[in-house]
Amino acid sequence: MEALKLAQKIGGHIEIKGKVRLSKKTLPILYTPGVAKVALAVAADKSLASRLTFKKNSVAIISDGSAVLGLGNIGPEGALPVMEGKALLFKALADIDAVPLVLATQDTEEIIKIVKALAPTFGGINLEDISAPRCFEIEERLIDELDIPVMHDDQHGTAVVVLAALLNALRVVGKHLDKAKIVIVGAGAAGCAVALLLLNAGAGDIILVDSRGIVSCGRLDLNAPKRELAEKTNQRKIAGPMKEAVIGADVLIGVSKANLFSLELIKSMTKDPIVFALANPTPEIMPNLARQAGAAIVATGRSDFPNQINNVLGFPGIFRGALNNHVKKITMEMKLAAAKKLAGLVKRPNIKNILPSPFDKRVVKTIAKVIC
Amino acid sequence: MEALKLAQKIGGHIEIKGKVRLSKKTLPILYTPGVAKVALAVAADKSLASRLTFKKNSVAIISDGSAVLGLGNIGPEGALPVMEGKALLFKALADIDAVPLVLATQDTEEIIKIVKALAPTFGGINLEDISAPRCFEIEERLIDELDIPVMHDDQHGTAVVVLAALLNALRVVGKHLDKAKIVIVGAGAAGCAVALLLLNAGAGDIILVDSRGIVSCGRLDLNAPKRELAEKTNQRKIAGPMKEAVIGADVLIGVSKANLFSLELIKSMTKDPIVFALANPTPEIMPNLARQAGAAIVATGRSDFPNQINNVLGFPGIFRGALNNHVKKITMEMKLAAAKKLAGLVKRPNIKNILPSPFDKRVVKTIAKVIC
Repeated sequence: MEALKLAQKIGGHIEIKGKVRLSKKTLPILYTPGVAKVALAVAADKSLASRLTFKKNSVAIISDGSAVLGLGNIGPEGALPVMEGKALLFKALADIDAVPLVLATQDTEEIIKIVKALAPTFGGINLEDISAPRCFEIEERLIDELDIPVMHDDQHGTAVVVLAALLNALRVVGKHLDKAKIVIVGAGAAGCAVALLLLNAGAGDIILVDSRGIVSCGRLDLNAPKRELAEKTNQRKIAGPMKEAVIGADVLIGVSKANLFSLELIKSMTKDPIVFALANPTPEIMPNLARQAGAAIVATGRSDFPNQINNVLGFPGIFRGALNNHVKKITMEMKLAAAKKLAGLVKRPNIKNILPSPFDKRVVKTIAKVIC
Repeated sequence: MEALKLAQKIGGHIEIKGKVRLSKKTLPILYTPGVAKVALAVAADKSLASRLTFKKNSVAIISDGSAVLGLGNIGPEGALPVMEGKALLFKALADIDAVPLVLATQDTEEIIKIVKALAPTFGGINLEDISAPRCFEIEERLIDELDIPVMHDDQHGTAVVVLAALLNALRVVGKHLDKAKIVIVGAGAAGCAVALLLLNAGAGDIILVDSRGIVSCGRLDLNAPKRELAEKTNQRKIAGPMKEAVIGADVLIGVSKANLFSLELIKSMTKDPIVFALANPTPEIMPNLARQAGAAIVATGRSDFPNQINNVLGFPGIFRGALNNHVKKITMEMKLAAAKKLAGLVKRPNIKNILPSPFDKRVVKTIAKVIC
């Protein structure tokens, strides 16, 4: 209830502040007639907007409220507090001016049009909590059609932090990414992006599982992104329910729903298994149960257990770097580099410490440097 | 050049700030999992958004860059510094969190669609620097179709401040609104709105003039808003060039372009004429020349002359009131009341003092009370 009380008291997480005090002396500089000079300079050379205006340091956090946290399609008003919280994190961690914008439409083409029309105001676009598979097309089109960086954080923020955590977890148990048998349960925005990033990082054996079972080329019910991944993953060409994929696996990554993993499921994995149970707020299996079933390393999305895998380790540094370095597109290479650098910040990873703290000041700086 | 130097140094007028300090303790309250409680509460009852979220105190400043200050159609990037300056004024004067949003489209239907889609984030919409006649349709449609207040400030902010200034100016020279012969030169957004507000305030003899001369029912080249005004004004049914309208006039209001009024024009007015030369930054006639030609009271849009007629006296209080009082539409009655209250703040108006200072703390409070 604490969050609700806070909202009742302050009515919103963020505010807009002037950087200069308004006075009789500054009024004609900040507004007409003085501001006309800046307006004309920027109009004559639009590239100056990213040096002389709000665009220099701003990111729009855009959501249509269709897939908010683990709460589902709660609509734009319900999504607004979440986007505000994120804007607060952007400022506190990366000194970025992020504006929450929740949209009263869930139409793919309309969202694309709106974001394109809003682009002159912003230095970057953070898409947030937009449901799959629409999120893939919206992001892809905007990346193609805009000259500012666009990132759907539920996909790539998550994927970067998962890869960083996995690199360190594998190091702890003495296994290797190219040999590890990895199962990803959940083939929405996060699951698909995690699969793709791990593949690009060199993972050799990935099986993706959705609510109907193992994602394989034989299935006729796959949407385009899953079909693409079916061809790139599941090299052993197995089919069937989740449990068939998990038998003998080294790594089980859940980006699905509460309590989906049983003790028996974890017990069916190989020696020293790694379990990331990332459903929020209730993980696929509680850490104590996973360990009881033999998991060597357990991570969740929660701050009250060890090994929190939280996007907050990713997006502030990624957008800080994109703005600092005037990056137009955030590439696969940048995401891989960010994950490796993030992992590298933990000098001696152990079963209870595979990731740095979001309050570690090196995190944003280190990631920002490789987004270039 | 001072404004340009400032922009080079600070890179934008405003920033986003968190209202709560981020720490290990506040992170789970401000973001997941805590924020889910607020999200669910608002999703269940959308009306809570205006109590628990950013929407409570936020206004979007929307421009398509088509009619920026007196600079014309300089596009969204060029408009951005102006909207930022305005956002700074909103915060400094009325403690409102205003977000500058410049759009990469000048299509009427698209702008309407975009603003409607953005509405869940905001408690009010300030349309700004959108050219006539598109501005009329955009505003009208949005007022009809949204349940938050929408105001095109170039129209109504200007009109409210002009009416307040005129009420006091007439008082100083001992004339009356219902009898005064009033000529408004410029029939764009500001001119049309001023004419309409003065009519509703009880002005009995208004003649509107555009770049082609006196606006009269006989003309076949009028757009819809001008045609409507042609029927409501010009009771003496005169036609011809501007100078025909000004002969014998008590009040001449310019919302047109630099240096349009000659000494001879002012000399052709009646005794103790009132001249508002509001073109920015260069007025229709400089105050010293207007006085030389016999003007009893001169006002401009500039801060370096007496009697500055500046929107900044209007929009902060109007939106403060609309947010405080959960007003869904800003009505004609509210605008009339705001103008009268604004005029009333000057206890003893004289030829050099017909309006309060924008820094007079009573201005926002007094106007806000009557927007209800």
